Amino acid sequence: MPQEKGFHVAVVGATGAVGQQMIKTLEERNFPISKLTLLSSSRSAGTTAFFKGQEITIQEALPESFEGVQIALFSAGGSVSKELAPEAVKRGAIVVDNTSAFRMDENVPLVVPEVNEEDLKNHNGIIANPNCSTIQMVVALEPFRQKFGLGKVIVSTYQAVSGAGAAAVDELKRQTKALMNDEEVEPKILPVKSASKHYQIAFNAVPQIDTFQDNGFTFEEMKMINETKKIMHMPSLQVAATCVRLPIAIGHSESVYFETETAGLTIDEAKDLMKNAPGVILEDDPSQQLYPMPANCVGKNEVFVGRMRKDLDYEKGFHMWVVSDNLLKGAAWNSVQIAESLVKLELV
Amino acid sequence: MPQEKGFHVAVVGATGAVGQQMIKTLEERNFPISKLTLLSSSRSAGTTAFFKGQEITIQEALPESFEGVQIALFSAGGSVSKELAPEAVKRGAIVVDNTSAFRMDENVPLVVPEVNEEDLKNHNGIIANPNCSTIQMVVALEPFRQKFGLGKVIVSTYQAVSGAGAAAVDELKRQTKALMNDEEVEPKILPVKSASKHYQIAFNAVPQIDTFQDNGFTFEEMKMINETKKIMHMPSLQVAATCVRLPIAIGHSESVYFETETAGLTIDEAKDLMKNAPGVILEDDPSQQLYPMPANCVGKNEVFVGRMRKDLDYEKGFHMWVVSDNLLKGAAWNSVQIAESLVKLELV
Repeated sequence: MPQEKGFHVAVVGATGAVGQQMIKTLEERNFPISKLTLLSSSRSAGTTAFFKGQEITIQEALPESFEGVQIALFSAGGSVSKELAPEAVKRGAIVVDNTSAFRMDENVPLVVPEVNEEDLKNHNGIIANPNCSTIQMVVALEPFRQKFGLGKVIVSTYQAVSGAGAAAVDELKRQTKALMNDEEVEPKILPVKSASKHYQIAFNAVPQIDTFQDNGFTFEEMKMINETKKIMHMPSLQVAATCVRLPIAIGHSESVYFETETAGLTIDEAKDLMKNAPGVILEDDPSQQLYPMPANCVGKNEVFVGRMRKDLDYEKGFHMWVVSDNLLKGAAWNSVQIAESLVKLELV
Repeated sequence: MPQEKGFHVAVVGATGAVGQQMIKTLEERNFPISKLTLLSSSRSAGTTAFFKGQEITIQEALPESFEGVQIALFSAGGSVSKELAPEAVKRGAIVVDNTSAFRMDENVPLVVPEVNEEDLKNHNGIIANPNCSTIQMVVALEPFRQKFGLGKVIVSTYQAVSGAGAAAVDELKRQTKALMNDEEVEPKILPVKSASKHYQIAFNAVPQIDTFQDNGFTFEEMKMINETKKIMHMPSLQVAATCVRLPIAIGHSESVYFETETAGLTIDEAKDLMKNAPGVILEDDPSQQLYPMPANCVGKNEVFVGRMRKDLDYEKGFHMWVVSDNLLKGAAWNSVQIAESLVKLELV
């Protein structure tokens, strides 16, 4: 279909926190759309959403919903993607999937456009959107990888509750209100809704995101480790992650230590690399107390980098603080950006 | 003075968050006290505090206040310590100072009893209590240092606002209440009261604790780096820190990566070392979602360790999550513990 007329786009999971941001981002980016189909579970079907002033009724996502759809943005959970993404592809759509269902599938490109846009050319119908905490980290690391190589990455995350969905944000608010009134809290959702134990998130730090693997790392931590290697095409890159949930509504932060492969990078050059990096805004001036913070990143598409320091002991070691809106670059915006890349590369 | 009769103890800064915990801890530990003198600024003098059921009037701290005092616990800010600690020593007292005034003074032992109690024998009247974030980390690292040596330490902190004093806790509560009511906040204290800019702490993460140094690290980060080297007698230990303030009232958490010097430490042995380490409680069972959290450490003297993992790439690399009550082991309890060690070693 000629680009001027636009594409038939579907959003699956249109009532969710990320789905709503996808609709908003498609509108803000003025993505070429001839028709927008909004899909959800049967439970949410029948409600409406607005796109460019038009009210659109959200329909139940079924295999036949994808007839004529060219680009389908999925964000309705892994099981929905596993069931319906192949159905969408069968009907001719390209799927950009925001769940973890296909991320490590070797036939599925895992894409952050600033890093590996070219991988889109090898798609077989499905393209995976990486985990939120992975995306913002690789955007900041890529310029260093390109110029000096990467030897080792150690990251500790400071993650917002919206990464666990809108219900987790409600839980944070509910608990905060209760504790401010000296009332008891009854945790029901975090750290993992389906897990047997739930813990207070208000005024607390919970070092568990997603379920535990046999090696003691959580699935969230393994996502950061494995996805980073795949996106950067560095299967033997040394990456380690510790992921922590915090009483913050929106905005993930990361304390990242990385080692370059070759020596010679100065701190001024490191800051310059970030200043000129695609998708990055450098906020780094200690004399002005300028550094990124989650409260300032909300609603912005960029990855914010600051607190850049050269390690005091190791010539190739660097530290930085990376912040981004986990619902945007971490999810909705990266998905829409992939769709834009598909159009630009004439892959759709 | 014979121990049975007890010692004349003074607490300087008796109305502060840490000072109050010191009084409480002296009582709970049943420290041998013949007389307790409570001192503060002239502003707070005249108020009272309870110790073992007795109401004690808090007096203005003056040089002559230390006549007859044998042990003086200081926690009233660096300038007070600089002025009055030498006056107390001149009058025969041993000073345990919780400020940063003397920590890096080579004539002053910097002591965490689980790590370097023996250093107390070299005191010249003043003993320094390390920074809160340093103490809990070295307690957890020491057993590894003893058995396998330490090569490198990289820590990212998750610090509570009470580390910045009672006014910072009030600010967190005030801002939280305002934001829950959709009102504006007017930050006045954090990250650093005397700094020109103040930032929202409620529902935010602020990657600045204390002022910035020329090398881009904050003073808090340099405290962790330099104090760790001094306490462990490892001037060339590679330590790096990133310190972050979070919307948590009490309880510092730390994501610690460390490398042993010699190989051979297994993950089971690492957990065993923590299980048997003095001052440490191991809380580490992923199958039970058991790990330390700040909300659970409040009011406890121990350092809680969990999320222990062997690095997936480097044989000598380990990750752990270290949590402690920053007002207790991080301040009041470590000070009282130093006083107990002084009695035990017959140094007072």
